[in-house]
Amino acid sequence: MSSDLHLDSGEVALLTDLYELTMAASYLEHGFNDPACFSLSVRRLPPRRGYLVAAGTERFFEAVEQLRFDAAALEYLDSLKLFKPDFLDYLGRFRFTGSIRAIPEGTIFFAEEPILEIDAPLIEAQLLETLAINQVGVATMIASKAARSYSAAQGRRLIEFGLRRAQGADAGLVAARSSYLAGFNGTANVLAGKRYGIPVYGTMAHSYVMAHERERDAFADFATSFPKLSTLLVDTYDTVKGTENAAQVALELKQSGVELQGVRLDSGDLADLSKRVRKALDMRGLAQTSIFASGNLDEYAIAELVRGKAPIDAFGVGTAMVVSADAPSLDMTYKLVEYKGRPRVKTSRNKVTLPGRKQVFRAWNRAGVPYLDLIGVIEESPSTVAREFKPTPDKITELMVARMREGRRIEPNPTLAQARETFLEGFARLPPPLKALERPEAYKVRYTAALNAMQVSEKLKVAERQR
Amino acid sequence: MSSDLHLDSGEVALLTDLYELTMAASYLEHGFNDPACFSLSVRRLPPRRGYLVAAGTERFFEAVEQLRFDAAALEYLDSLKLFKPDFLDYLGRFRFTGSIRAIPEGTIFFAEEPILEIDAPLIEAQLLETLAINQVGVATMIASKAARSYSAAQGRRLIEFGLRRAQGADAGLVAARSSYLAGFNGTANVLAGKRYGIPVYGTMAHSYVMAHERERDAFADFATSFPKLSTLLVDTYDTVKGTENAAQVALELKQSGVELQGVRLDSGDLADLSKRVRKALDMRGLAQTSIFASGNLDEYAIAELVRGKAPIDAFGVGTAMVVSADAPSLDMTYKLVEYKGRPRVKTSRNKVTLPGRKQVFRAWNRAGVPYLDLIGVIEESPSTVAREFKPTPDKITELMVARMREGRRIEPNPTLAQARETFLEGFARLPPPLKALERPEAYKVRYTAALNAMQVSEKLKVAERQR
Repeated sequence: MSSDLHLDSGEVALLTDLYELTMAASYLEHGFNDPACFSLSVRRLPPRRGYLVAAGTERFFEAVEQLRFDAAALEYLDSLKLFKPDFLDYLGRFRFTGSIRAIPEGTIFFAEEPILEIDAPLIEAQLLETLAINQVGVATMIASKAARSYSAAQGRRLIEFGLRRAQGADAGLVAARSSYLAGFNGTANVLAGKRYGIPVYGTMAHSYVMAHERERDAFADFATSFPKLSTLLVDTYDTVKGTENAAQVALELKQSGVELQGVRLDSGDLADLSKRVRKALDMRGLAQTSIFASGNLDEYAIAELVRGKAPIDAFGVGTAMVVSADAPSLDMTYKLVEYKGRPRVKTSRNKVTLPGRKQVFRAWNRAGVPYLDLIGVIEESPSTVAREFKPTPDKITELMVARMREGRRIEPNPTLAQARETFLEGFARLPPPLKALERPEAYKVRYTAALNAMQVSEKLKVAERQR
Repeated sequence: MSSDLHLDSGEVALLTDLYELTMAASYLEHGFNDPACFSLSVRRLPPRRGYLVAAGTERFFEAVEQLRFDAAALEYLDSLKLFKPDFLDYLGRFRFTGSIRAIPEGTIFFAEEPILEIDAPLIEAQLLETLAINQVGVATMIASKAARSYSAAQGRRLIEFGLRRAQGADAGLVAARSSYLAGFNGTANVLAGKRYGIPVYGTMAHSYVMAHERERDAFADFATSFPKLSTLLVDTYDTVKGTENAAQVALELKQSGVELQGVRLDSGDLADLSKRVRKALDMRGLAQTSIFASGNLDEYAIAELVRGKAPIDAFGVGTAMVVSADAPSLDMTYKLVEYKGRPRVKTSRNKVTLPGRKQVFRAWNRAGVPYLDLIGVIEESPSTVAREFKPTPDKITELMVARMREGRRIEPNPTLAQARETFLEGFARLPPPLKALERPEAYKVRYTAALNAMQVSEKLKVAERQR
């Protein structure tokens, strides 16, 4: 059975804008299918962001590898009476045959830097546009948002709780994956646990307490069902009384050798309540019982609670993070930068693009801190661009690596755990002023002389193109 | 083949928070599975919203009808070492057997009004929580946002263009469906066209122009490929020169009896450019060629362009609408309101719930305008609540209707076209002050005396529940 929440493999191919298909059809008709390169990048950082965290590329690569137009897809396209049989035949045989270079998941990167570049025959590369932006955009946006909670929590544990408020099923999965990648410790999303091996966590809802005649009975029932997972939600009615009831249950449990794991606060003034609850627990010899807080938390609220020394051991972060509430979209674009071996540029107002196939060179100082990225052309290398960095770097790394060749991912595929390591290491090395939640310092990103020259020369050709 | 974008039917069952499963397991263990009622509603309207548009329920009902835990799901749950065999057996046999009453898709409704209520054994109803909020929330949020563009466009055509910036694959489908429901004329999303029968539209991207050596060649090629779909994107380089090139192609086409459909502007000052482009086209006898505008449009920008009499015939609306940028989440909750025939209430600070199974009664005046909604208990009817409306209504309607019974949808299922009709009719009757884009007037929603009395009496019982 298949409900509207299911996507068949033939349907993923149609998860695209109609114009990708009309352009492709016109390219085919007019013999435009030479090698092209498209570049995916974020035009500018969202407000209050000092950096981005690369995510979503691996899911995209998997989808690209498997992209097929099945009979039902072709039948629907035929029914539109727009496409000629030649083009539908082409789609029926469609396989991605190109190569993709990308910045690995978990890497910290910045505006204008290509998160990936696709080298493929023009039609193939064009057909990937919508899916690339849709998938890499949301994953990168949420990872970049989640990193801010990771930063604010200063080592306290973080659980992603946002599936219900995520913008749909797919966004819920992406939120769990991207937040784990960006330092979270787990998720409440069971399917994300199954798919990605992310640790799953869960407590209880208010309804559980309300279904019982007495709060204390609810706590006792839950603790006997899940002695090792017993975090009791104490704010269904009065939070302080709720804590007393939880403590009573904890003391009863203790007699049978079981420690109550924690209590959860989900409303009210968390700074004040957490202190009162901590005191109430400690007074009863329950110093081991942890306090878990949730309820409209985001990086700003977490930072405030940490600053106020609220005795909270773990945070559940939901809505604001999973929809990236203060910046719910990323200005990500997918642009033709080369066709038939020649660079391309667009000059629409405020939307000028960087021509040519590129690489990003990152300079590190002796302390292992990055201080300047140069976006260059692909023919350049760390040694050829070294003299453009001032001061002289201790090390220059290339951010983009080959990830697909002849339409297949290059094995071994990086794991989510590796991406998380990449993030944790990169984040630890990032200068603190870039991590500020408000008005972060801007990291320096420049173009190499070669890329600059190419852009100037391409802009000069524009008049010619409009003749 | 199945990529990470695919959801199997067994996976939809796991698209849930772990606590739904731990609560369910504990309920089963302790014999809590009597009839329960849960109510799904929006706690408060998002900023700047005067009303909500119901959407997403039909997709949810379809998923509920098909919800199953398959072998892979059970195996994963077993691997967590949390659940006893009895509970996994229960899940293996799980079918939803309950009933659902709901406000039909396309209906305008308000905060606190239940968009749906589920009557089912406690465990079944609890297990639907996460999916209900996830699916109905995003669809209602986007429909409510799209209605604002519909309102601002004052009859001009609207095409949904946001798939690439939607928060994932599912959100892209929801955005197309919800915006069409709320008055849009079509979408660029091909899969949404196939699934929902929504008209699909597409033009060309800048890359199409850039792949050609000369802009004019690109226009000519496209127009020969799609003579009936020829909307030419004129802003890749200089917009006015681009328009001249488009006009030249249009005049050539005219000689072979084909009308250029339109030109598209995607950047710059659309108010000014549209006037200059209109003049340039008219001067060349191309009065039939329409102007299509896009580029960071939302209801505010559309209203401004309409006020300024910009000669734009159709708008492409993307990012801001599909992520509901100014209000990217809905404060939607799913609350236990009755268990074992007795009402339930929660009293957490600022989160008090309405007890009992409910109905929403809407009063209409003689002019066919709604002026007051009363949320009442399910035993009430239009005749019993009539005397609570002042002034006396011409008509009282009940908003919630039965949609599922014994786990199956009640045939015939309403179509998307019907939902769109429901919206268009309801919107036309809505008092204009409620439709204001900024500071809309608040529609009056009150409780019936019976619901008020029930809430007071349930709150009094809370002390007892915390004994």
